[in-house]
Amino acid sequence: MDIRSFVSQSFGQWRSQRSAHHLTFQHFEAVESVIDIAPMPLDNPALLQLCADYQVNPLDTVMPFQMAWEGTSDWDEKAEILKGETILVPVPDSPNSSSGRLLRSQGYAETMPAVGLYSFAEDGTFVLTTQYDHAAAEEKIWFHNPNLRFRLSLVKTSQGSGVVSASFSSELRVLERS
Amino acid sequence: MDIRSFVSQSFGQWRSQRSAHHLTFQHFEAVESVIDIAPMPLDNPALLQLCADYQVNPLDTVMPFQMAWEGTSDWDEKAEILKGETILVPVPDSPNSSSGRLLRSQGYAETMPAVGLYSFAEDGTFVLTTQYDHAAAEEKIWFHNPNLRFRLSLVKTSQGSGVVSASFSSELRVLERS
Repeated sequence: MDIRSFVSQSFGQWRSQRSAHHLTFQHFEAVESVIDIAPMPLDNPALLQLCADYQVNPLDTVMPFQMAWEGTSDWDEKAEILKGETILVPVPDSPNSSSGRLLRSQGYAETMPAVGLYSFAEDGTFVLTTQYDHAAAEEKIWFHNPNLRFRLSLVKTSQGSGVVSASFSSELRVLERS
Repeated sequence: MDIRSFVSQSFGQWRSQRSAHHLTFQHFEAVESVIDIAPMPLDNPALLQLCADYQVNPLDTVMPFQMAWEGTSDWDEKAEILKGETILVPVPDSPNSSSGRLLRSQGYAETMPAVGLYSFAEDGTFVLTTQYDHAAAEEKIWFHNPNLRFRLSLVKTSQGSGVVSASFSSELRVLERS
């Protein structure tokens, strides 16, 4: 698996079930959402701005894409609507490297831009680690088949040994009806 | 990681949060339980019977153990009490093999005995696959640290390409207060 195949396989619409385990106070959170992942043209102004912010040449990026999500969470006993979008820009360490940086115009839960490091495990799992000021995130995404992917995310203390929350998502491709 | 270290690390009491995603009808299930894992003496009658059922010499087994659980599920809008126990018996393919069979006096959701095949992935993850008459199960268990382990289970159609349900557990060791 490389970043091109991984991003290509991710394009489309996904129906996601996500469960978060907040370990410190044993809380469950359930999130249902629809996620849209689409290629982003290299001349998009927001993409160019993100590259400029990180001093990255847009020609050194590979398959930048956008991700939009809309869903509901059962956090706090009331269904809360979640909605957002982000631009994601893979920047390989070298032209044919299978690892690199992933620039994001904003994180999933953060309102700040973030940069993570991605790589692929032996079994093809995409692994993303992001260091924040007071926490670290580790995300793994893998395809069970072309229409089903799983995503596992850990939010860790910045030292990395403690885990604050673990969440697991099952994402089924929304197939076009012909 | 080998089966001896894996089973040793598993001994103790665990507080588990499990979320199941029933993919076909997009249902979430949340289960909270306490799990006790303890060594089982080789002369236990139920263990000897299980070995006899599978024509296994008890001396060819490695660290047989028992697992007991008690918890609640929010399945069907009412909290349902789950309680059970099972004997698990690793039988390595050869004395120093890192893979083998795992005999179980009963499965998690099944009332029948079952035999699965275990192995370890490169990163030390324990992988168990079990073939049933009309389904197949794949379970992965790994330690984030000695006091936190994660468990991922898929219930698949017997051909293995379709996934009926995916569940994820976070298990925190219950530490003795001194």
